[in-house]
Amino acid sequence: IEEQQDSRLLSILEDVHYADVAEIANEIEEDQATYLIKLLDSDKTSDVLTELDDDVREAILKNLSSKEIAEELEELDTDDAADIVAELPKEIVQQVISEIEDRDHAEAIVDLLRYEENSAGGLMAKELVKVNENWNVLTCVKEMRTQAENVTRVHSIYVVDDQDILKGRLSLKDLLTTSTTAPIKDVYIPKVDSVNVNEKPEEVARIMSKYDLEAIPVVDEIGRLVGRITIDDIVDVIKEEAEKDYQLAAGISQDVEADDSILDLTRARLPWLFLGLIGGVGAAAIMGGFEEMISKHAILFFFTPLIAAMAGNVGVQSSAIIVQGLANDDLKGSISNRLVKEILLATLNGLVLALVLLFFTWFWKGNFPTALAISISLIAVIVVAGIIGTFTPLFLHKRGIDPAIATGPFITTSNDIFGILIYFWIAKLILGI
Amino acid sequence: IEEQQDSRLLSILEDVHYADVAEIANEIEEDQATYLIKLLDSDKTSDVLTELDDDVREAILKNLSSKEIAEELEELDTDDAADIVAELPKEIVQQVISEIEDRDHAEAIVDLLRYEENSAGGLMAKELVKVNENWNVLTCVKEMRTQAENVTRVHSIYVVDDQDILKGRLSLKDLLTTSTTAPIKDVYIPKVDSVNVNEKPEEVARIMSKYDLEAIPVVDEIGRLVGRITIDDIVDVIKEEAEKDYQLAAGISQDVEADDSILDLTRARLPWLFLGLIGGVGAAAIMGGFEEMISKHAILFFFTPLIAAMAGNVGVQSSAIIVQGLANDDLKGSISNRLVKEILLATLNGLVLALVLLFFTWFWKGNFPTALAISISLIAVIVVAGIIGTFTPLFLHKRGIDPAIATGPFITTSNDIFGILIYFWIAKLILGI
Repeated sequence: IEEQQDSRLLSILEDVHYADVAEIANEIEEDQATYLIKLLDSDKTSDVLTELDDDVREAILKNLSSKEIAEELEELDTDDAADIVAELPKEIVQQVISEIEDRDHAEAIVDLLRYEENSAGGLMAKELVKVNENWNVLTCVKEMRTQAENVTRVHSIYVVDDQDILKGRLSLKDLLTTSTTAPIKDVYIPKVDSVNVNEKPEEVARIMSKYDLEAIPVVDEIGRLVGRITIDDIVDVIKEEAEKDYQLAAGISQDVEADDSILDLTRARLPWLFLGLIGGVGAAAIMGGFEEMISKHAILFFFTPLIAAMAGNVGVQSSAIIVQGLANDDLKGSISNRLVKEILLATLNGLVLALVLLFFTWFWKGNFPTALAISISLIAVIVVAGIIGTFTPLFLHKRGIDPAIATGPFITTSNDIFGILIYFWIAKLILGI
Repeated sequence: IEEQQDSRLLSILEDVHYADVAEIANEIEEDQATYLIKLLDSDKTSDVLTELDDDVREAILKNLSSKEIAEELEELDTDDAADIVAELPKEIVQQVISEIEDRDHAEAIVDLLRYEENSAGGLMAKELVKVNENWNVLTCVKEMRTQAENVTRVHSIYVVDDQDILKGRLSLKDLLTTSTTAPIKDVYIPKVDSVNVNEKPEEVARIMSKYDLEAIPVVDEIGRLVGRITIDDIVDVIKEEAEKDYQLAAGISQDVEADDSILDLTRARLPWLFLGLIGGVGAAAIMGGFEEMISKHAILFFFTPLIAAMAGNVGVQSSAIIVQGLANDDLKGSISNRLVKEILLATLNGLVLALVLLFFTWFWKGNFPTALAISISLIAVIVVAGIIGTFTPLFLHKRGIDPAIATGPFITTSNDIFGILIYFWIAKLILGI
């Protein structure tokens, strides 16, 4: 279909949502996608561009002239436009910006470029409806109409004073129901949540989802209204956070997808596997140190994978619960309470599991002392693993490091080593060798 | 402070956001929380109730009369009210409903109770602004004002025909800018995304976040408008989904939090640990079968934790990427391509790791053939683990089972066993024993 039948293609794509066009563009060849983008109206393609995979977008933009890129940018909200400009090669940025006809729009984009990507400023858009507290309702409605031209969706009407300081918000409902001559001062709601431009995206997400907000105004250091963040951007932040935590827990270090190249995937996976290798070599070295036991108690060696697996699993379980509690900000109580709780919990789990193991080993080899030694070691290993799993994320969090890295290979590896060490020590002690 | 100083308490809490009051109520004693709720206006407490932890809410509701509960429900949107009613003991539901003064509100709540919790119907609220396509703009604005009384936030104005069939939507902007006598028929936008009442919440979340929607209308089987879902409910769905996947990956089977009781936490964690125990016992049994090798090649046994850890890590990595790809619906290409890719990837990772291991083992024990055997087995184990990790979630997904259970202890355990079996087989083959 891709060959020349422009008009047919156009009529087919006309009714397709931009997100679906983006999905198609992601899957076809680069030059075909470029062709498609050039064919369609910039009204639609601009939205398509924001939805494309990074690498596809980069390839397409390379084939567009500065003027064509500028046209796309004009159709976009300032936050999306700024994101695209930030990805452009430095040498063409200036030219692209100068080609944007709407100077206010260009200024807003340039303003947004100043903010760090990983902050509220990097997320916000300049499009918003704001009114001065000294206006009356009629002026306000008139002003709103002009402003609303540039704003796709009106979330809230923000009220500012002459210095642009955010004072409150106005509800559409109140505006519709009060007399047209009433001054805004008398009708606006002086309570409004806002975030500072330097706030972290995760914190903005937490505030917005806690208070069920659909948009939040962003203010600078002295309280001036500089932009607004909408919930759809926050949905992306929440999803990315969750994906990152999930990948960290699974031992994948970069943000990769199943369809990335083998080299990218290797780079993301190899470091964690390497950590596992070091852990395994450590475990082997420990076992080598207990080699003299092998002739009398070979069975001890058979259970090392079990011990390692249990230590790893318990560690991941405890740390995952703490990581989630930290992320949701709902951890209560003191550290020592948590310690007691985790020890009780681990002992309970350990007792049940050790009892099962005791009977199995006893029947298998008929040697009760060895079976008992293995089971008691298992309890000790589980308790230590639980403690390490609980405290590693708490410790990292206190030091300002993302506690999510504590789940996954990191905790598994360290627990493997500790587990096996404890296991052989205790077994040696009990069996008196 | 909690003792009697009502007026002081009231004045303090007056300016506190309901989500913060809920946080306080979650932390204090049950009877104090009940006291607090009774003290405050139902206008505020109703919102507090929706934000409380399940167990705290249950305890508080038990201490309220049917009339008091009905008052709270009247202040809530129908979706939140229905959620609370669904949690009430059956015997008092009827009484509570009959105490609700606003009959339309009561009817809407009862309607919502009919829908399954895990569906679009269970998520939606009845509050929405709808207009008939046969009205003109003036009637429409008048009608909207009355309807808007019951709706906290107006997202979209939905247009229906005489049979209540959803026809399209109306933008506030267009409404403000067209002449008041124009019929709605001529100004509405006939394209509107909607979901069926039986749609799964995850699918609704996918659609809303893909198309950046802030509200989506819900229609029944014949296209009648029955409710709407807003993005704040979807944010909760997305978060819960992410938490569930994360917990499954970490081997925690129920939705628990760090502050739940030890018994709850044990119930959530023990089953997966038990799975790990069985895996460990299986691994021990396999090693027992190779016991005759222990005298000559004890070193083989030292590396079993390493082999098990590698098999587990690789399995979790591959499955996590597939699980995420399935969740985001962005897996492309055929199964056989994916197979080839995973094998290449695993081989590449395996080669690098095996090479490191080879040198380490060689220098440690000075026995090249054994070192080579261990390293070659490692490659084989990594490749098999990668294949199992890739295909288990794909297989589960095809069978309609949540692929997320494939990550975590499940894959770790099976890969431990397979890994150790393959390791000893290949080592035996190479060393010719």
